[in-house]
This record gives sequence, C-alpha cells and structure tokens, in this order.
Amino acid sequence: VNPALLATAPTATPDVQAERDDRGICVDRVGIRGLRYPILIETLVGSQTSVGSWELTVELQKDRRGTHMSRFVETLEQWSSESMTGARLLGMLADLRQRLDAPLASARCDFTLFVERSAPVSRLSAQHAIDCRFEAMTTARQAELTLVVRVPVTTLCPCSKEISEYGAHNQRGYVDIRASIDPESDLAFEDLIAVAEASGSAPIYPLLKRVDERHVTMQAYDAPTFVEDVVRRTTLSLTDDKRVKQFTVHAENQESIHDHSAVATVHWERG
Amino acid sequence: VNPALLATAPTATPDVQAERDDRGICVDRVGIRGLRYPILIETLVGSQTSVGSWELTVELQKDRRGTHMSRFVETLEQWSSESMTGARLLGMLADLRQRLDAPLASARCDFTLFVERSAPVSRLSAQHAIDCRFEAMTTARQAELTLVVRVPVTTLCPCSKEISEYGAHNQRGYVDIRASIDPESDLAFEDLIAVAEASGSAPIYPLLKRVDERHVTMQAYDAPTFVEDVVRRTTLSLTDDKRVKQFTVHAENQESIHDHSAVATVHWERG
Amino acid sequence: VNPALLATAPTATPDVQAERDDRGICVDRVGIRGLRYPILIETLVGSQTSVGSWELTVELQKDRRGTHMSRFVETLEQWSSESMTGARLLGMLADLRQRLDAPLASARCDFTLFVERSAPVSRLSAQHAIDCRFEAMTTARQAELTLVVRVPVTTLCPCSKEISEYGAHNQRGYVDIRASIDPESDLAFEDLIAVAEASGSAPIYPLLKRVDERHVTMQAYDAPTFVEDVVRRTTLSLTDDKRVKQFTVHAENQESIHDHSAVATVHWERG
Amino acid sequence: VNPALLATAPTATPDVQAERDDRGICVDRVGIRGLRYPILIETLVGSQTSVGSWELTVELQKDRRGTHMSRFVETLEQWSSESMTGARLLGMLADLRQRLDAPLASARCDFTLFVERSAPVSRLSAQHAIDCRFEAMTTARQAELTLVVRVPVTTLCPCSKEISEYGAHNQRGYVDIRASIDPESDLAFEDLIAVAEASGSAPIYPLLKRVDERHVTMQAYDAPTFVEDVVRRTTLSLTDDKRVKQFTVHAENQESIHDHSAVATVHWERG
Repeated sequence: VNPALLATAPTATPDVQAERDDRGICVDRVGIRGLRYPILIETLVGSQTSVGSWELTVELQKDRRGTHMSRFVETLEQWSSESMTGARLLGMLADLRQRLDAPLASARCDFTLFVERSAPVSRLSAQHAIDCRFEAMTTARQAELTLVVRVPVTTLCPCSKEISEYGAHNQRGYVDIRASIDPESDLAFEDLIAVAEASGSAPIYPLLKRVDERHVTMQAYDAPTFVEDVVRRTTLSLTDDKRVKQFTVHAENQESIHDHSAVATVHWERG
Repeated sequence: VNPALLATAPTATPDVQAERDDRGICVDRVGIRGLRYPILIETLVGSQTSVGSWELTVELQKDRRGTHMSRFVETLEQWSSESMTGARLLGMLADLRQRLDAPLASARCDFTLFVERSAPVSRLSAQHAIDCRFEAMTTARQAELTLVVRVPVTTLCPCSKEISEYGAHNQRGYVDIRASIDPESDLAFEDLIAVAEASGSAPIYPLLKRVDERHVTMQAYDAPTFVEDVVRRTTLSLTDDKRVKQFTVHAENQESIHDHSAVATVHWERG
Repeated sequence: VNPALLATAPTATPDVQAERDDRGICVDRVGIRGLRYPILIETLVGSQTSVGSWELTVELQKDRRGTHMSRFVETLEQWSSESMTGARLLGMLADLRQRLDAPLASARCDFTLFVERSAPVSRLSAQHAIDCRFEAMTTARQAELTLVVRVPVTTLCPCSKEISEYGAHNQRGYVDIRASIDPESDLAFEDLIAVAEASGSAPIYPLLKRVDERHVTMQAYDAPTFVEDVVRRTTLSLTDDKRVKQFTVHAENQESIHDHSAVATVHWERG
Repeated sequence: VNPALLATAPTATPDVQAERDDRGICVDRVGIRGLRYPILIETLVGSQTSVGSWELTVELQKDRRGTHMSRFVETLEQWSSESMTGARLLGMLADLRQRLDAPLASARCDFTLFVERSAPVSRLSAQHAIDCRFEAMTTARQAELTLVVRVPVTTLCPCSKEISEYGAHNQRGYVDIRASIDPESDLAFEDLIAVAEASGSAPIYPLLKRVDERHVTMQAYDAPTFVEDVVRRTTLSLTDDKRVKQFTVHAENQESIHDHSAVATVHWERG
C-alpha cells in the first residue's frame, strides 16, 4: 500500500450523492441489505443477545441523485447498545429520516430467538430456536410495526389416517405469521409463536426422551391436520386478538411422501 | 413390504378433503410448492428445455375442508408436453380451476433461461444463464400475466470515481424486474433482460478474452452508476413500453468494499 | 460508452497471468465455479437436457503467476454440444489440461435429472426430480470418475412405532451416495438412485392418488427405518456392486418431531 | 389431544436403539445436524454471545442398532452455560463419548463472530460480522481441533489494471481458512481473520465515510491481486505459524464482469 495515502487524504471530498437529479423519478426504497449486527431482544422472561440481519431503507425524493449509505450503518451502530423493542425501532427510523432528510424510513431485521421448551412428559428443558423478524416503517404522520415468526410444527395427514388400516404419514411443517400490530401494543413474539404451535398436530421440541416421543407420536395421531386446517386455526386465534390489525398466515408442509411442499395462505385485515 | 398391500387396496377410499368445513374461513391460496418439472420455453430464437420449479395454488371456498393436491401434479404433467407460453400457462390455470372447482388459480414457475452472448470485441460467444419466472393468475373474469427476470450487471461507484485520484470500486449487481403485462402482448423475457442490462455500468458476459476484458473495464469506468441510477434508468425504459401495465424494479449491488449490499426499488403502475 | 473503445482495442495485450511467480507455491486447484451451462445427459431411456452448474479447475505449477480463466469457459462451450457422459467428461478434462498446460484438471457438475415414476397402485406416472452430480479428475496417468446422487425417501421411526400404542412419526429423508466408479463402467445415475430408494421405509413419488397414498402409508409403517439402517442397507448393496471402487453414503432425516436432522455416514473403499 | 396420554405414559419403554445389529457394519458418524443453540465465545477482547448451528456425531459400533439422539441435545444443553473454548469443546466430546459409549465423537459449530472494525481514515468504528466454525474430534487417544473462518475482502484484477488505459475491475471475494491447530495453542479466530484480510487488495469494512472510501479505492488499485495470489499469500503466512499443523485455504472472487466465481485452493500439512 502506498504510504502516502493517509497523508494526502483530503479533509473535504465532493458529495456526488447530493447532486441534483432531473429525471423526476422518486425512488421508493433505497438503502442497505444483509448487514449483520448484534441485537439485544426483550423477551417475556428477560433480554437476549442475537445476530440480526438488517435491511434499512429510505424513500429518496425525485430531485436527488442518491442517498448516503454510510449513515444507515452509523445510525444502527448508535442505536444497538440497548434493547431493540418495537418502540426503539421506530425511534431509530425517526432518527434515520432526519439524518437523511427522508419522507419515509423502513427496516427489517431477521434474527433467531431462543425460547426455553420443556418436554411434555419428562419435563426436561432445552432451548428452541425460532426465526423471527421485525418490520417497521415510519413517515411524518405514520408508524407501522410488524412482527414475523416462522414456527416449526408436526402435521399428520387426516386423509392418510382415514384411508389407511394403520399408520399415517406426517412431516415437519412451518407456520409463518406476519402480524401488523399497534406499536403501543404489548404483543410479543412469544404470543405469535404460541398461536402457531397450537395450529398443527403437535408442537416440535429440541429435546425428547422416549416417554416424550411416545407422547408426541400419539398426540399427533390424535389430531390430524391439513395445511388448510393450520391456517384456519391460526386465523381464528388471531382475529380474536384485538392487538392484531392485519396478518398473513402461511403454512408449509414438507411432505414426507413427496419431494415438494403443500402450502396454504390466509390474509386478513381488521374491518 | 407386506405383499398383501396391493391385493387389499380398496377401489374407493373416503375423500376427507371433500368434507364440509364450518369455520367460515376462505383459504386465499392452497396448493403445492417446490415441485420441479421439465419445462419447454419459447425464446426469440427457438425453444429451450429447462428445469422449472413450480408453485401452483387455488382459492379454497370457505365451506370445504381441503383441496386435492394430486390434481395439481396431474394437471402440470398433462400440460408439460408443449411449450409453456404465457397463453398456455393461463390455459393450464383455467383447466386447474375447473378440475378443482376453484374460483381462482395461480402459478409461479422459476427457471434458468440461457441466452447466447457474444463478447464485445473478440465476438466469441457462449451461453449466459438468467434467472426467470412466470407468474400468472386467473379467475372467471380475470387473467394476469407477469414476467420476472434477475439480470447480473457490473456497476461502478460514481462517488468512488469522483473522490479518488485513480481507480473506482465496482461490483456485481443484480437487477430484478417484475413486469405485469398484457397477456396478449408479445413482450419476451429477452426484452426485459435487455432493459436491465442497459441500466448498469457494463453488461456481464460468460466469456471474455483479454481484449474484451479491457473493453468492459473501461466501459464501466466511463459509465459510473449508483443503485439509484439503475432503477431510474430501468423505470424510464419500462414506462415507455406500452405492453407493460405495472412493474417493480429492484437493484442490488453486492458491494466490493462492504459485506452487505446496497439496494433500491421503484414500483410503478400505468395511470 | 466511449465509442473510441473498440477502435483503440489493441490486438495484443500483456499476459499478466503468464508472468513468472517466485513464491514456490503450487496452487492445488484454480479455476471457475458457479458457471451454469446447458448440459445434455444420457439416461437409461434416452438423452435429456438439463441445467448444469460447473466447477472447473486445474493445478497451477509453482512458477506461474496465474491460470487463464476464459479458457475454462471456451472449453466447456466447445464440449457442450454433445452428451456429457463420463467418458466425454474425462475427454474434456484432458483437453483442458492441454490448453492450460496443467498437470491435473478436475470438474464438478451439479444438475437435476428427471426420472419417470409410476405410482404404486394407480400406476399414474409423472416426472421425479433428482439432484445429481458428476465429479471427475485427470492427470497424465490417472482418470477418476465419481457419480453423486441425492435421493428423497420416507423414513418411519422404529423407536416411535415400538413405544407408541398407535401411530409412528415419519419424515422426509435424503440419501446422498457419492460413488467412485471405474470410468469404463456402465453404472448409471439411475442405478444409484434405485439403491438409495430401497434403503428407506418407502420411496417418494411426485404423484399419488388416494389408493397410492394408502399404499405408501402402510408400506412405511411396515418397514420402520433408522438413519443408521439407511446407510447400512445402502452399504450392503454397494459393496456387492463390483463397478463401485469406493463410496460415501450419507443419510439425513428431516425429523418431524424436531427442528433439526438426524444424520449418519458410512465411508467404504474396496480392499 | 387425548387427556389420557400423560396418565398412561409408561415409566419404562423398549429401547430399540440398543438392539443388537448383525450386519457387521460400523457407522462412521451418526448424530444430529442443524441444531441451533446459544453459544458463548471467547474473543481476544472479551466474551460474546452468538447463535451456534451444531453437528454432533459419534461412531457407532458394528453390533449396535442405533445411537441415542436425545443425549446429544442433553449434553449440549449442559455444556452451554459457559464459554465454548476449544478445550471445553473437547471436554464436551469426551463426555459425549462416555454417555454414548462411543469410540469417537466429533462436532462442528458454525456461528457469526463480531469484531470491532475502525475505518482507515475517519477511525469511525462498527461491528464486522465474520462466519466462523469450530470443528473437533476425539477418541480415547486422540484430540483434534480445527478453526475455520470465512473472511470477505476486496480483490482488484491485476490483468484488468495492466491492459486497461484506466480503471480495473474489482469485486468482493471470500477467503476461507480451515486450520488444524494444537488444542493447547492460543491461536484465536481473530488471528486467522487477520491473515485472510491481509491477502487481498484491501480489507472490507462495515462503515466507510467518503475519506475512507477514497482510501480503500486507491489502496485496492495499488495492490492488484489474483485469486492465486490470495491463496499463496495466506499460505506463506500460515506456514510461518508453528501453531498451525495443517490448513486448507480457499479463495473465491465473485467476479464483477462475470456471473460466476474465480476460485483457488491450497492444502498444506506441516512435514
């Protein structure tokens, strides 16, 4: 490396992004994606450190050439020392709007949440990893907060059970809930996880001893569930929860008799 | 395996899916995902065999317990012998609606399209792989067709070029166009690919000899392009094309100076 | 773009790769990866076009600065017009060794193979996608050829069946066979697929009607199989086949009662 | 769910895994994969919580039907309360060998490590995410420990710079080092990261202001580097470090002028 590089570094450099743009096209979203950063999450039983993967964007006015990408990282760095609750996430976006003089700012952050899970009979407990995501958006007048979870469940096929003299095929399924909530609400990721887990044939556990395995095998056989049933059960639970303004629930069964999945989706908005 | 299995196979088995459902919840989409199937694609220069990955779904009325998953595969099998044009895809969905007595049917099919590409100076040619996707939806009164492409380009940073005494960082970027088109239209995947490729600092090629590498290096240095420029250039091209009813263009630069991406999105609908 | 670019393109440019390197370090493998290219495959029932994803590398002598990356693509382009059998793959590598003056050349190519599959009772047939890979390596004195398949199966847990009063959890599993074979041998990908499919509780099908679903449900319940059983059964089959010189079989059960997999591996070499 | 399930749970259930197996085939590795668990890592500047993704396996003797999968999770749960250093990882594997009466136990754990990184001119600092992996294996007489890192760098093409009148294409590259080390050694993940970062044209940073961007742009232009140079530089550094017993270094350039990568590999063992 040329040692002169540091010495000759100018104190001021041209700001190309700040140039005027004459094409008249507003850019709906511009920013960064795939930035991994430490994140501190509040759960119902305490705070937890995880690895966040962020997308941070703003709306760019039609007369500006570009946004300033480094400010997204600077902002995140400064807001990462404390817990990232829904309220603080919206606070960070308000800060970002100001730093970038932007009409709208939005964020997505994917992370793994660990919840303690006790086996149904032995009661042995272990950590259960759940994929979660925060989504948020804010303008001068609006603030939206969305929680997303992806929860593994067991599903046992009602058709297979009915038509077979013995046995029934079953498989791992995933229930994705994307719920738009009141930002003031106390709805937690764990609340959505509980709803999703109750929608299949049996929950999934990280640790099961033989007595537990016997239990979940028979529990699933007793509660055969189509992918259509999963999304309908989840829908019934969520429409009952006034904290939820709208949601999409998606279920995917990774079929054990096929190499493709069965899927179902319901979208719902509070009237 | 019990050899009696085949002998005892009943000619009629109960149809659990056809049972009545009293929960009153319509399932917006239900079907299969991740089914790989051979697909024959028509290009501007002939037909091409590729590997399709399908999602096929229908809307399920609120009074029915489930859909019949096997019919999705049967339908695809029967429609796969000929080229899957936009028109035939909509024909297949109409067939699917009838077989499943469904108000709405939709499809997505991801596949790799190969286009021949000649190097800019040596003119040596090779095959260039582009990720493409068909999306379609149909009801009794409506038919929608959407083409999606993901096109790699080179982008060279205008800011880096301007502030540095020599050199400029550049990187691979991807331009995603998702265009809703008139189903009768002759717009081809290649048309969208051409628009996307013209939006960066230089196109990307599978095969470049030294004279070509020299050419694209200088071509990119001569045409510095922000991710914001990519989506604006694409927007200007697509709004000019009357065959396009609405589109979303998304650009992602896999930054060479960071381990995250810069992204930009514009969504547009013909007024 | 500067229109002068083409005009000023030199007929000869410096060859930096051909420079002498004095660090004395041979590079074991250097080349390209992730190049998608059309591939024509010979199956037991005819030829088939698929999408190949290639890695092509050579060994680089210690006194040379670099290899010539464009020649990998040129070579593949020229060999892609005909079927890529094991023999032609080794022929292409011999050609590559010569073009790059390299002591060793090697290749990997991943592709999807479709095999026709009839449902066990209804006999309805559909295409079944299997992930396959060619691996090959050649020097002046040696030629190695390896076939790799990844085959989905159903596995039903023997423990769950034994300890439960009814039902048994089961799931999708994948059997990976990587078999080094005599390059002159007539062993086909389909042969390995058949071995893998016979190792689980039941095969997996793209299309099953209710009578078929009943059949495979009971077939799996009748043949409970641990992941350890899968690799042992496969081992017994492959050691019997004289065309196989060595192999690794790996089984992965995507457990329906956990969000993690159960895995097992056996490696074997003919003595 | 049948409420009788818990009541009827037997205190003793048959142990199918413990059955005798007569096939005479030892299973080289059997266990679990893809289990995510909280992990506490020691870095040179303190401890850090991350999300680990584990593979834990043992060798299964030829006369046993199966291993006991739940004990892997129980063992990990009990060892996860303290920092997972190399020494404790080997301790956990010794424990696992005993619990499963196994001749050999092995582990892999992938996790994200954050290292603080200051921009080269502005000195602004932010967290930089690096993919890391522990690998370990132990028998009654042997213990092996391996550290793996995947480090992003910028690489600028020497050929492109030499043959072009201005500019030079560059891209993000990844340097993978897999180093087998003395388990008593004090070699840290950060040591390997530093070696990898020094092997490209310029390091990569999470946060760069304009003065920094100017610096790294020119730094990269001043130090053009082929993928062959990356692995050779890394090789020279690692062979000098007596704590390293053997290593594989792999470099991948995500070419900005192609949609495929350039790759190089060197494997080395201390003589």
